[in-house]
Amino acid sequence: MMIIKTIEEMRSKVAERRRQAGKDEKESRIGFVPTLGYLHKGHASLLKRAREECGTVVLSIFVNPLQFGPNEDFERYPRDPERDSAIAEQEGVDFIFMPDVTEMYPQKILTTVSVSGITEGLCGASRPGHFDGVATVVTKLFNIVQPDRAYFGMKDVQQVAVIQQMVRDLNMNVEIIPCPTLREEDGLALSSRNVYLSAEERTQALVLQLSLNEAEEWVRQPGIRSRELRQNIISRIATAPLAEIDYVEIVSYPSFLPLEDEEPVTAAVNDGQLLIALAVRFGQTRLIDNRLYSLGDQDTKEEANRV
Amino acid sequence: MMIIKTIEEMRSKVAERRRQAGKDEKESRIGFVPTLGYLHKGHASLLKRAREECGTVVLSIFVNPLQFGPNEDFERYPRDPERDSAIAEQEGVDFIFMPDVTEMYPQKILTTVSVSGITEGLCGASRPGHFDGVATVVTKLFNIVQPDRAYFGMKDVQQVAVIQQMVRDLNMNVEIIPCPTLREEDGLALSSRNVYLSAEERTQALVLQLSLNEAEEWVRQPGIRSRELRQNIISRIATAPLAEIDYVEIVSYPSFLPLEDEEPVTAAVNDGQLLIALAVRFGQTRLIDNRLYSLGDQDTKEEANRV
Repeated sequence: MMIIKTIEEMRSKVAERRRQAGKDEKESRIGFVPTLGYLHKGHASLLKRAREECGTVVLSIFVNPLQFGPNEDFERYPRDPERDSAIAEQEGVDFIFMPDVTEMYPQKILTTVSVSGITEGLCGASRPGHFDGVATVVTKLFNIVQPDRAYFGMKDVQQVAVIQQMVRDLNMNVEIIPCPTLREEDGLALSSRNVYLSAEERTQALVLQLSLNEAEEWVRQPGIRSRELRQNIISRIATAPLAEIDYVEIVSYPSFLPLEDEEPVTAAVNDGQLLIALAVRFGQTRLIDNRLYSLGDQDTKEEANRV
Repeated sequence: MMIIKTIEEMRSKVAERRRQAGKDEKESRIGFVPTLGYLHKGHASLLKRAREECGTVVLSIFVNPLQFGPNEDFERYPRDPERDSAIAEQEGVDFIFMPDVTEMYPQKILTTVSVSGITEGLCGASRPGHFDGVATVVTKLFNIVQPDRAYFGMKDVQQVAVIQQMVRDLNMNVEIIPCPTLREEDGLALSSRNVYLSAEERTQALVLQLSLNEAEEWVRQPGIRSRELRQNIISRIATAPLAEIDYVEIVSYPSFLPLEDEEPVTAAVNDGQLLIALAVRFGQTRLIDNRLYSLGDQDTKEEANRV
């Protein structure tokens, strides 16, 4: 495994791998897992999948200032490159691309890649500029690493949709592989930000997963409307006194168009395309979680979660 | 020479060339000339340069609706694919990529690539959205063709600057080669839109080149200020009764920052970085032209025009 700090070296390593690539499709494939670092088992699962499918696996670790708002946690975002390297080594990563901010942004960047429509709600609304920052840095990373496949976790479901849309719209030569959200044993979605939580916040944070579980029943109530479903979820989250709701959104997937208040949710569930997405603060820490609902069996649902 | 209509085929032809590429750097290089078609000698000069420098030459012909405003000439933009093919054949082009609008935009595009700062003045101000359309389609074309070098004419000086900035900011793996403006014998800059001009408009349109010529003297007048220089140019253009000025801009290059009205132009000229850019309507036809000024000799100026 090799740690690479410069764009030039990253390019030359990838080019070398391409030149050496034989006829074998899997062996010649370059898989890419872009991250902010502070790796957890969710990241590890992406790396495992990339390792299974690709001859070369590149992990990038870059806390991208562009995707953090002025009052967000860019400065205090957790960083531990040594631990990250150990995890990457264990997962069989070939190259860690770990550039400094000045390597990625040597002068003021004037170019922005932005995706409209699907970024209007959810994190797009509550974190203005966030998805421009994501789309722009992912474009840069794709241009530097030139992967055949890139792996993203479905915890950030809107991010996955934004990147899939961008890749399709701009004819980027990469296949996006969405991967299922990984969870702690008690159900909390894995996130690098979980480390911010106090013991009490950590316990109360389970309410995200629990309300999404209960919604499995609610979405099946005949004739239930979006407004009522939303109110149920809000009330459930409110049972955790430390929870401060940022948003509870009920949208159709993959359009991310919000359901009207009085719209029955059944049609969307029938299509296996109802998405409930949550963002809730516990103290200083903002957590997100989401689930796709369908009337199909578990297999169908799992499949929907992967697409 | 082969004419290609689909993205898939274009990708596979380029991939084939890459696989077949030997060790020779020039032979393995892919050169790209993106155009709106209706080719003239300016385009031919870009193709010649690409042919000299690259083993594979790709020409694209695509009238991109995204870069035309609602009241602009998208519908009536001149098209002549057969004549274009003959010129391309003559210049030794390997592939013409000539997609339909539905091939490039199979569904509503939600992603935009935009460059701020340098797009604020000149054509960026008088054609809102134009450079977003250019940056977005050029990104798409670069992702499809994956060229090593791309050739652009300096008549569209702001376009060249936008694309250079975008390539740098997004780490695109392509070298932008700006090429000098070609002119008719009487000095009119070559443009596909010249075909719109009536005989009288055509004669009067020479005033663009003539006023840029006279400005060679004006910029050398000790202490001349931007406002005065601009007024001289406007007055000179006004001697052509059919001329309707869209803009006369005096900016430093390559920042495209406008000089203040009372700013002496000498400093910018000393740096070889004074750009005068003109857009003038003759009847329905909007023409543009520009020149870079320096105190150096002709060689220096020519070099500046190339960078």
